[in-house]
Parts: sequence; structure tokens; C-alpha cells
Amino acid sequence: MDLPPSPLARPFPDMPPIAGVELRVARARYKEWDRADLTFAKLAEGTSVAGVFTSSACASSEVELGREQVKLGEACALVVNAGNSNAFTGIRGREAVEQIMAQVAEALDCKPSEVLVSSTGVIGVPLPKDKAREGIAAVLDAPTCGWEEAAQAIGTTDTFTKGAHAAAMLGETRVEMCGIIKGSGMIAPDMATMLGYIFTDAAVAPAFLQELLSKANAETFSCITVDGDTSTSDTVLAFATGKAGNGELSSWDDVGADAFYAALLEVCRELAQLVVRDGEGAQKFIEIAVTGAKNDESARRVALSIANSPLVKTAIAGGDANWGRVVMAVGKAGEPADRDRLSIGFGGVWAAREGQPLADYDEAPVAKHLEGEEVRMDVDLGMGDGKATVWTCDLTHGYISINADYRS
Amino acid sequence: MDLPPSPLARPFPDMPPIAGVELRVARARYKEWDRADLTFAKLAEGTSVAGVFTSSACASSEVELGREQVKLGEACALVVNAGNSNAFTGIRGREAVEQIMAQVAEALDCKPSEVLVSSTGVIGVPLPKDKAREGIAAVLDAPTCGWEEAAQAIGTTDTFTKGAHAAAMLGETRVEMCGIIKGSGMIAPDMATMLGYIFTDAAVAPAFLQELLSKANAETFSCITVDGDTSTSDTVLAFATGKAGNGELSSWDDVGADAFYAALLEVCRELAQLVVRDGEGAQKFIEIAVTGAKNDESARRVALSIANSPLVKTAIAGGDANWGRVVMAVGKAGEPADRDRLSIGFGGVWAAREGQPLADYDEAPVAKHLEGEEVRMDVDLGMGDGKATVWTCDLTHGYISINADYRS
Repeated sequence: MDLPPSPLARPFPDMPPIAGVELRVARARYKEWDRADLTFAKLAEGTSVAGVFTSSACASSEVELGREQVKLGEACALVVNAGNSNAFTGIRGREAVEQIMAQVAEALDCKPSEVLVSSTGVIGVPLPKDKAREGIAAVLDAPTCGWEEAAQAIGTTDTFTKGAHAAAMLGETRVEMCGIIKGSGMIAPDMATMLGYIFTDAAVAPAFLQELLSKANAETFSCITVDGDTSTSDTVLAFATGKAGNGELSSWDDVGADAFYAALLEVCRELAQLVVRDGEGAQKFIEIAVTGAKNDESARRVALSIANSPLVKTAIAGGDANWGRVVMAVGKAGEPADRDRLSIGFGGVWAAREGQPLADYDEAPVAKHLEGEEVRMDVDLGMGDGKATVWTCDLTHGYISINADYRS
Repeated sequence: MDLPPSPLARPFPDMPPIAGVELRVARARYKEWDRADLTFAKLAEGTSVAGVFTSSACASSEVELGREQVKLGEACALVVNAGNSNAFTGIRGREAVEQIMAQVAEALDCKPSEVLVSSTGVIGVPLPKDKAREGIAAVLDAPTCGWEEAAQAIGTTDTFTKGAHAAAMLGETRVEMCGIIKGSGMIAPDMATMLGYIFTDAAVAPAFLQELLSKANAETFSCITVDGDTSTSDTVLAFATGKAGNGELSSWDDVGADAFYAALLEVCRELAQLVVRDGEGAQKFIEIAVTGAKNDESARRVALSIANSPLVKTAIAGGDANWGRVVMAVGKAGEPADRDRLSIGFGGVWAAREGQPLADYDEAPVAKHLEGEEVRMDVDLGMGDGKATVWTCDLTHGYISINADYRS
């Protein structure tokens, strides 16, 4: 199924090379298609790695292995297979991953545990070992490529190619950060979602890189949803090659740690939002800001309850400022809320304040706001200081068409 | 919006009168329509009442009051307003309910607290007091009517009228039980859902009636979902008039208690399934049986995670035995599960056993099963003895069409 690009698509940004990262792609033909579907990143010796993974109890072998690998903190290569998630494939699936790790480790003269592997696509079909072996051999010999080619090769049902870039000054040293991501459906935040990769030339100690990534993840990837369905393979990895020449960051007290985190947060937020912009069938990008909750986590849960409500999402698709459905979604969230303190607004205009529709509520500017591609919803619970912002898309006929036909 | 009846509709059953219950309907015209939208049931003196209500934190005044009223255990009347849920309407909404309670109590010479009120329809518009007052006056003067008329008058977006009947022998005494229900969207189980009313001529002490209703609710109304969205107004009430002449049931040790519960469970299950059969846009009725969970509650959560997954529901809509999406939904449920012990089947045929697709899996009988209107899914977690069955419907273009247009 070839879909036109999402109406919410963004052009692929200019992204500079990252010293210590070499990208290559090849055609393993994991599916009956003629496109690059195997992506390879060779990483300079001493590259730090950190990762966040799906919390699914049915995670793939790639995720199970990856959880252990990032604890070791060093990486020499990344391999991404597109077209087959290799999830729910038992021992045969695991053997395929271990074969890839061994083959790459031998070629690069590193440890198999330093080769990170991700796979994305159909669930339940073991990754074919022969195709993987030939694909890896081909990609090791392939010429290096740019970010956009790599971002294209990791995609499956994505309708556009997604990347983000930021730079930061760590004292006198400029560091670069580039990220690529794939994802469009089966997107729901739970510690991590989708496949995303962030590369930087900064020197960052693995434990601190993990701390920064987990923190950024909580505010970005964990705050998006397309359909409330959490994938079995979701992974976000960050690699720091250390080639920029900065003094290694190992704590918040180090010079440039705050600037580095700001850049990481920017890249993570942009990548996360790009996935929502490619939400299956999406016509509108929706930002939901919840304030006045008991605490931030409570605010996030309420915001996600709204963002995952099919009735709210279809109302936005229909351009209807249906705040009654928002009341419903707040009520079902299982978090502290009080009907009589609840306020709801769209596009900066309150429709209801403290539990009642506003007597002088003028729907005209709200209706106009909802005609646009970018919808903003404000919900104040009136209970405390907790707040959170999440991002989602509307629920349209496109989602049904895509998912009643495609076997993912 | 007038929709054709759901393809999964059932004809309204023959239901006998219940001694001690008089039904009447009237036109309060809560919306711009010309149909009965106010339903009234007069109940014999000494009628026991029990109820289960939405757990929404933004429940309507009707629900807030109802929670207190059922604790008192006696009822003299039931009033149901259709077309306006009166939820999120603050003090004005509460006043409208109290006005109805007072007006009926005066006419029947009973306590206002013995008049149960429900409302269903649009959220956020206070129930108009003048229409309610005139409607109540009209309904008190109306001729009595039958179950089907009453069931019709409580409906809103329902595409067919829903009732269920059972009888039980309590020792030598035959008791009758009739139930009516409305609901089609904003249906997700959380202690209770929708508006449902069950009437019996049995004599049952209020506390025991509540115990029985809560128990039946856990296995029926709490095991259905249409869209995972929990309404602000959901209510199921049971009334026992005591006119059958049996010795009052007040504990499980009483003669006929088991038979009475079996009848109650049958009526509740049928009513719950009828709501699923009228799920917005539904083309298929789906039964999901989960076994092998750590315990029954864990099984129910896993089953609901599958039943609420838009990717599973669209796959069934497309006739696709996409068990990979079932794996995903099990994995995200947040309950104990082990990928390598998981088995999944459709229509009595296993597609995957213990974490792997079956080598000799024959998709033909499964594909044929999925062409039908009734789909059965079996999921065994291989972890313990916990089990649960839930019911849902598929997710189709019809759901999007209905909800992107209708302001509910």
C-alpha cells in the first residue's frame, strides 16, 4: 500500500554528518519490495550508548537483548531491519539476531554485545537468516550515505521521512546532534515508542547519557500517542561518539550539560512530533495541555486519556469543539478530578470554566481554530500544580482504511 | 442522524408484565424531535432497589444522587430522560433532577429519595426545567405501556430496541425478570456502563439485591467495550417489587437464591451483549476468551486490552486473523505475560502456540470464520488458572462517520 504523504508532513531537514558515524544502507529484501531495508551505522571506538525500550511484556528478541546491551554502555554498530519485526518468533527469531551480531562483530573486530539490532514490520514471521546474512555482507561493502537515505530505509508504513537536528555549545566546543525516526501506527507512549536513533559527536559517559535520554523520553516520546497501541519492538537509542573534543560529560555539574540536554530534548521532541504528524490517517496535529493536576504524572495520564479517546479524536476530525467528550475522557482517566473545578478550552478560548459551560461562550473563533491543521486544547483541573503536554492526531477514515487492509 | 439497524441487531423479545411495575412514556421534547423521550416506571410500595454506576470522576448529578439513593434500598419510581445527559451542568443540572424527584414524590406520596432519575444524551447542556416539569405532568397522566415502548423511549443513538427476559423458580414460586437497556457508543466497562434497568417481581432484600447485581455486573457489563470510552452517566438499576409471593431472599442460603442469580446473570449478559451488538458502526460481534492468566482480574484486563485495541478491531473488520496485533495488545496490557507461553486462536483453531506461529497453521478455516458476523478469539497466557470472557465489536468506517458528525 503506497499512501500519499501525510498532510501534516515536514520536509527532511538539513543535517550535518556526525564525526564518528558512518551510515550505509542495502537491500536485504525482507519483503517483496525493491528498496533499501537494511540500515547500518558504524560507530567510532569508544562510542557511548543509551536506550529506552517498550515496556511490552511481549517484546521482541531485539528489545530483550538491547535492554542488556545498553547496560554495558558501549556500541560499535547499529543494524536496523525494516519489513519484519521478528517479534513473537521464539528461538528462531533470537538466533537471527545473534547471527547478525556475530557477523558484524567479526567484520568490525568488536564484541557482538556492542552491535545493537532493531527490527520493524510484520509480527510473527522469523527474520530470514539467509536474507539477513546476505544483506549484512552487502551493507558492509556499500558506500556511505546521508541521513535522509538512512531515515528512508528504516521506514515501513511511514508516509514521509523523519529527521531532526540540534547543536549545543559545551563551553567552547560545538557539538552536533542528529536523529532519525520511523513510526506511524501502533504508537502509544510507555517509556519508549517506535524506532528512533540519535547520534552526537559529543563525549558523554554512558550512565549520564542514559540518565539524559530517560529524562528527555519522559517529556517527549512518552507524551505522544496515535492509537493507544504499544508496539512490541519500540526502541530509542542514543549514541555519543566523543569526536567533538569536549570534556566528557558525566554529570549535571559538567560544563555544557544543560546545553547538551536542551539540544537532546529539542531533537527528541521534534522526532516524537514527527511521528504524530505521520499518524495513520491523520489530518490534524493536536496538542493537549493539562494543568492544575495533583502532580505532573497525573496530568500526563489525564492528557493521554483525552488523547487516546476515539470520541475526542473523531470530534476533532469533524471540526467539532465537543468539550463534553473531553469531560468524559477526564472522568474516565482514573486520576483525581472534580467536575465542578474543570475548565476546557480550544485554541486559547475557554468553552467551559469550573464545571459549567460559559454563558457567553462564542463558538465562532473556536470553530475557525478547529478548521486548521494544528489544534490546541487546554484543560485545567483546578486541583494542584501538576502539568503535562501531550501530542496526538485525529482519528479518521484513513486510519480504518489503512488498518483493515494492511497486515502489520 | 437516523441510522439503519445494526446488522447484529436482535428482535425485541416477548416480555411479560412484572407485577408491581407500571410503565408510561411521554414527549418532553428534550431535543427537536417528535418521539417519546421521557420514561416513567411506577413501582409498588416496598420495592427494593440496587444499582451500579459509572466510576467516572466527572459523573452527572443523576449518578451522584443515585449512588446515595440506592444505599437507602427502597424505590417508588424511576424516571429516564433521553436526549440530554445533564452531565457537566453544575448546580443548574442538579436543581433539575431535584425538581423531578420532588414533583414525582408529591404525585405518588412517597419520599423524593425514592425517585430514581437517569438522563442520557448530550453533555454540558442543563436539563431544561420547564420541559421536565411539563413532561412529568404528562407522563403521570399517560396510559401504561409495554416494555418495547419503554425501551424505545430511553434510547438515543441506538439503532435497535433492546430487552431481555428470564424466569426462575424460587422453591415453588416462579418469578419473572425483565430488563431494558440503551447504549451504542461511549461504552467501556468500569463497574457499570450505559443505562440499564432490570425489574423483577421477586422479593429480595435491598442489601442482597445489591450484592447480586454487583456480582452479575462484574461478569457482564464490566466485560463489554465498544470504544474504551466510559460515559459520565452510566447506570444499571435493579428493582424487585416483591409481588411474586416468594419468601424474601436475603442471603445465598435462602431457597432459590442461586436460581434467582442465574436468571439475573442471564438477563445482564444478554443486555450487555445487546449493547455491543449496537456498537457504533459494528459489523461483527467479537467474543474474546482469555485463559491461563495469573488470576481472573488479570485475565479480564488482558481481554479488555485486546478488545480496546484499534488495531485488533480494524483487523477483524478487515477479516484479517492478525494475531501479531493480538500479541501486541497482550504485551501492552500491563499484566503478567510471557511471550514464549502465549497461544492465540480464532474460531477454535490455534494460529500460534507457546510463542510461535504453528508450522502447519491452516489459515483457510480461520479466514472463513472471520467472514461471519460472530468472531471468537481464544488467548491462553500459560501462566495460571485465571480466565475471563469479554465482548466487543469491530472498528469500522461507520464509527468514524457517526462520531465525526454527531455531537453527543
